[in-house]
Amino acid sequence: MIIVMKAGADSQDKEAVLKRIMELGYTPHVISGTTRDVIGAVGDERGKLVLQSLESLHGVESVVPILQPYKLASKEVKPTRDIVKISENVEIGGDKVIVMAGPCSVESEEQIIETAVAVKAAGAHILRGGAFKPRTSPYSFQGLEEEGLKLLAKAREITGLPVVTEVINIETADLVADYSDILQIGARNSQNFALLKKVGQLRKPVLLKRGMAMTIQELLMSAEYILAEGNQSVILCERGIRTFETATRNTLDLSAVPVLQSKTHLPVVVDPSHGTGNHHYVAPMSCAAVACGADGLIIEVHPDPEHATSDGPQSLKPSTFAKMMEQLKKIAEVSGRTV
Amino acid sequence: MIIVMKAGADSQDKEAVLKRIMELGYTPHVISGTTRDVIGAVGDERGKLVLQSLESLHGVESVVPILQPYKLASKEVKPTRDIVKISENVEIGGDKVIVMAGPCSVESEEQIIETAVAVKAAGAHILRGGAFKPRTSPYSFQGLEEEGLKLLAKAREITGLPVVTEVINIETADLVADYSDILQIGARNSQNFALLKKVGQLRKPVLLKRGMAMTIQELLMSAEYILAEGNQSVILCERGIRTFETATRNTLDLSAVPVLQSKTHLPVVVDPSHGTGNHHYVAPMSCAAVACGADGLIIEVHPDPEHATSDGPQSLKPSTFAKMMEQLKKIAEVSGRTV
Amino acid sequence: MIIVMKAGADSQDKEAVLKRIMELGYTPHVISGTTRDVIGAVGDERGKLVLQSLESLHGVESVVPILQPYKLASKEVKPTRDIVKISENVEIGGDKVIVMAGPCSVESEEQIIETAVAVKAAGAHILRGGAFKPRTSPYSFQGLEEEGLKLLAKAREITGLPVVTEVINIETADLVADYSDILQIGARNSQNFALLKKVGQLRKPVLLKRGMAMTIQELLMSAEYILAEGNQSVILCERGIRTFETATRNTLDLSAVPVLQSKTHLPVVVDPSHGTGNHHYVAPMSCAAVACGADGLIIEVHPDPEHATSDGPQSLKPSTFAKMMEQLKKIAEVSGRTV
Amino acid sequence: MIIVMKAGADSQDKEAVLKRIMELGYTPHVISGTTRDVIGAVGDERGKLVLQSLESLHGVESVVPILQPYKLASKEVKPTRDIVKISENVEIGGDKVIVMAGPCSVESEEQIIETAVAVKAAGAHILRGGAFKPRTSPYSFQGLEEEGLKLLAKAREITGLPVVTEVINIETADLVADYSDILQIGARNSQNFALLKKVGQLRKPVLLKRGMAMTIQELLMSAEYILAEGNQSVILCERGIRTFETATRNTLDLSAVPVLQSKTHLPVVVDPSHGTGNHHYVAPMSCAAVACGADGLIIEVHPDPEHATSDGPQSLKPSTFAKMMEQLKKIAEVSGRTV
Repeated sequence: MIIVMKAGADSQDKEAVLKRIMELGYTPHVISGTTRDVIGAVGDERGKLVLQSLESLHGVESVVPILQPYKLASKEVKPTRDIVKISENVEIGGDKVIVMAGPCSVESEEQIIETAVAVKAAGAHILRGGAFKPRTSPYSFQGLEEEGLKLLAKAREITGLPVVTEVINIETADLVADYSDILQIGARNSQNFALLKKVGQLRKPVLLKRGMAMTIQELLMSAEYILAEGNQSVILCERGIRTFETATRNTLDLSAVPVLQSKTHLPVVVDPSHGTGNHHYVAPMSCAAVACGADGLIIEVHPDPEHATSDGPQSLKPSTFAKMMEQLKKIAEVSGRTV
Repeated sequence: MIIVMKAGADSQDKEAVLKRIMELGYTPHVISGTTRDVIGAVGDERGKLVLQSLESLHGVESVVPILQPYKLASKEVKPTRDIVKISENVEIGGDKVIVMAGPCSVESEEQIIETAVAVKAAGAHILRGGAFKPRTSPYSFQGLEEEGLKLLAKAREITGLPVVTEVINIETADLVADYSDILQIGARNSQNFALLKKVGQLRKPVLLKRGMAMTIQELLMSAEYILAEGNQSVILCERGIRTFETATRNTLDLSAVPVLQSKTHLPVVVDPSHGTGNHHYVAPMSCAAVACGADGLIIEVHPDPEHATSDGPQSLKPSTFAKMMEQLKKIAEVSGRTV
Repeated sequence: MIIVMKAGADSQDKEAVLKRIMELGYTPHVISGTTRDVIGAVGDERGKLVLQSLESLHGVESVVPILQPYKLASKEVKPTRDIVKISENVEIGGDKVIVMAGPCSVESEEQIIETAVAVKAAGAHILRGGAFKPRTSPYSFQGLEEEGLKLLAKAREITGLPVVTEVINIETADLVADYSDILQIGARNSQNFALLKKVGQLRKPVLLKRGMAMTIQELLMSAEYILAEGNQSVILCERGIRTFETATRNTLDLSAVPVLQSKTHLPVVVDPSHGTGNHHYVAPMSCAAVACGADGLIIEVHPDPEHATSDGPQSLKPSTFAKMMEQLKKIAEVSGRTV
Repeated sequence: MIIVMKAGADSQDKEAVLKRIMELGYTPHVISGTTRDVIGAVGDERGKLVLQSLESLHGVESVVPILQPYKLASKEVKPTRDIVKISENVEIGGDKVIVMAGPCSVESEEQIIETAVAVKAAGAHILRGGAFKPRTSPYSFQGLEEEGLKLLAKAREITGLPVVTEVINIETADLVADYSDILQIGARNSQNFALLKKVGQLRKPVLLKRGMAMTIQELLMSAEYILAEGNQSVILCERGIRTFETATRNTLDLSAVPVLQSKTHLPVVVDPSHGTGNHHYVAPMSCAAVACGADGLIIEVHPDPEHATSDGPQSLKPSTFAKMMEQLKKIAEVSGRTV
């Protein structure tokens, strides 16, 4: 931490700050500037948030954090990139770009099996599908719940595709973990710390979506909650942030891919379906995601989008998805990867 | 809903849309424009979200919602403003501006009692204090939990002030409801729909904070979740949204007060402590909140901000709080209200 | 500036940074931390932006500015608040809250005279009205131009109210200065640095509006451009920033009032008409602005809003404006001020 | 336009709206809903902005625009994509991805020639470089001005590369047009309508950058200003928007590429240097831009970034740029294009 004193602070103010820094167990170093003093506080990084309270002291202008507040998620602690094992044949974070595909919601046995078979045929590696749905409106379809989980398991049995589905609360987390291969934490729960701790205690990989107003640093802090509970299999997901632009449902922040890869060892996947909210833009943004180094994609595919119970406008038809997969393979190859 | 057809859509496209609108139980009305057709879908409002799926049809350019998606929270359903009863003597939504004050976190018996006595003496009506703390970092102080609830109850016993404290998950919701007079839903849980349903089933007033990336419409949708479960005592809280500006912790959106009052019957309070993140700005923004019609305020007060375990920089000292209360009384009077 | 070295930086990296800091004329101070070094660069503040280039050096993680980049606009340079003289009887920045009112656009002699007379009767101190209009669409009404300036001058003659109107380019700046008492720089030109320099050379007070995506620090940097040219009469104007919220036209950032007053000696006024975009919200937000300490207001008033050529939905009728003025007077009184 | 009446509006309110719609020259069509009426206004699209004033009428809840407010920029008017000719050999908008590269500022003859030769050798098609620099701080380097233009012309003579440079005001626009092959309008001038009209009257291609708070629709409206003056050679540039995220200088909105290509015939290029503000992220985001269909890139390259007078941290060294060009060629090939 760097404590910036006000231009008019006197020596008594400075003494009070030095004293408080030492009380908190840090070593202060004063830099006397031309108009004011700046004080560095040196010591173990992790507890440094308490230093923020120095802002309340007289004569202090601001307290500037120097280090990242996360540790386990940091590349400084573990410089090599993680490979998260999902099933016998599927892992995320290696040279293979992993594609998760399927409907927003599981709606019926026919729908999920038909989709699973189609996305597998097109080359997808993991089946996605929502059984518990967090919906903005209480009057929207809330998912088939356990029945949906069973249908996902059935689709896995038929196709061999591992399954990713969302966990929306602690009560049903174990249930979801019984059926699913990856536990998804949705954007609206990305700072539901109680839920993060819960999935940190389970022994299934977690797909952690970035919240709509979440900085990259906060995403890593949420990952830190899961890692700190002992679950080392965390996959981060960029899915668009909320901005003033309304031409797309969210603003897909693809720069987050190289930024995250420079800061963390965790794999990073991209969700262009929620990121754009419009099926026309899913293929180009999927290509872009692979081109900038994403470890995978999660894509909404529905056999009959205009009859979907949720997110129809952003779902690809299986034929469009298959065509897109061909293009993704070529782009991956260009950087020595496969899909 | 208004369905806007593309300029080049042909009659077959239009027929498909009309057919689908009728299948969904609505009555279509076509307006033939100079360059394209526009189709209105008339019918019961609540289920209309399914009409959004028409965007996937060929020849459709966009689907524009006309009506608000909330119902129970709407002023159209109940035009008179709610008065939410908190205790024998305290109610929110009437002519009296209600002030909730206290520390961010309950830290010790001495701290919470001292603060409660001080804020009561200054004229506060409700004691705030966190027992379960949702913190961005897993390494930050997470609250005294049940011990904190007991200390809040003790402070209530001594001062007679009702208590508001945060509920962070379903597991501990009943416990919090046993001790607290108002259940606070924090900004990070404002779209934790499972938790919203849970507090909707409890019979305690709920203080629902706006999420950092939440529109006013979405805040009302979250309130709708609570109302739909049968709990009619919901108080909305503007606490700042996330924008590009970093001079304040959040951007306090005070316009939300008159906007909400034009759309809903629910009372609206303001949290200038989180809204600005800086104790220097709390008093002016509290005055502004009362001046634009807020039904109440929730303010962080700490006897010793520089030693606070959380949110020290935004906490008022009791003496500053008392001074501010004097000013608030005068501003309330000007519009025929009291504090 | 604080230069943060990477955890793995070696002594050669550090030497290169120290050497470059000295080359640039600053004195480096090293703080050796537990995991990395942090280097302070001490010296004259103003040119420090060049230090940012150190980010390109090997082994440097980030460069953190410590000081504000503005000087003339800063309270550190001039701690007492400015009073900007507009005319014989009107000044902005003192104990009197100044209200500027009038139509978005000057449309006709009848319209501007009628409005001027009405707002004067209600207690306004300055007449506003656009002659040159910057419009998002090339097909919108672009203003009466010089004819509009003449009508404003005529309205001033009749009512005695000084006039504020917008300058949209360098070519017409002198012309506008001939007619107007205050030169308004609109939000879209707030970083048109060539125009800022031009009005800095004129000897008329400048009303500088905050841009839609402008931080408070950048607003002060734009003011610095005007001050640096020798024009010391600058009035800042908060008029709403662009956020994800669409219930209002912009998000009025009222906290900017106390924030600016803590950082600069320049007066601060508020524009709730553009800030909210809706006449229903203008009165409550005007009250809030005065309550949090604004030095003035700028309000759109139109005798016949539904026939206005621009911004009708956010314009007050004269009768509503008069009623609002009564309320503003009471709120100003409460803090020992007048309107 | 769709005019939504309030639930409680009476027939008198409705009549007034119908009357006003007809006065304005449109034909009203009423849709009677279950709780309220909705009125469509049919007629020529361009002037429809005046209909917005209906929001001021009694009984009107909101006015919802249905059509895009731009015309000349729209794909509906011209469905085939533009190819903008820059020089004998260079055109933007065809199957060849065009790369513009060079320093942020022209600093010296040696610097610009060295850079021009290097980027040409690496395969760049156009030389970029700033002679007039709009800088946030009045104390930052403001460019070599005409001297810089002459050096750019010299670099063109030597390398044969056409030149793009920024126009910052009307006064110097003709001068810049004398030297430059493309006139760049910077983000801060993207709604400086006087300047847009000026470059619309010149006969040189214009590179129009998106403003930091500019929606895609507003970008097209700014293009419309140029097109409406008769200049048909407009190239749009996505360069990042301002959001809450601070890990990058701006948030590069790559989705804008397919969105723009679905709405307009104008070519779209991407500026990943300003979009990310960090040279580490320029190569991955350039690859992503090409993968999602961008017609070109504009990249900052500097022979000695740590001594650059501006934007050093986001500039590539020539060697890194050359390596990146190799990768871009492969990605372009995958979709049947070249670089």
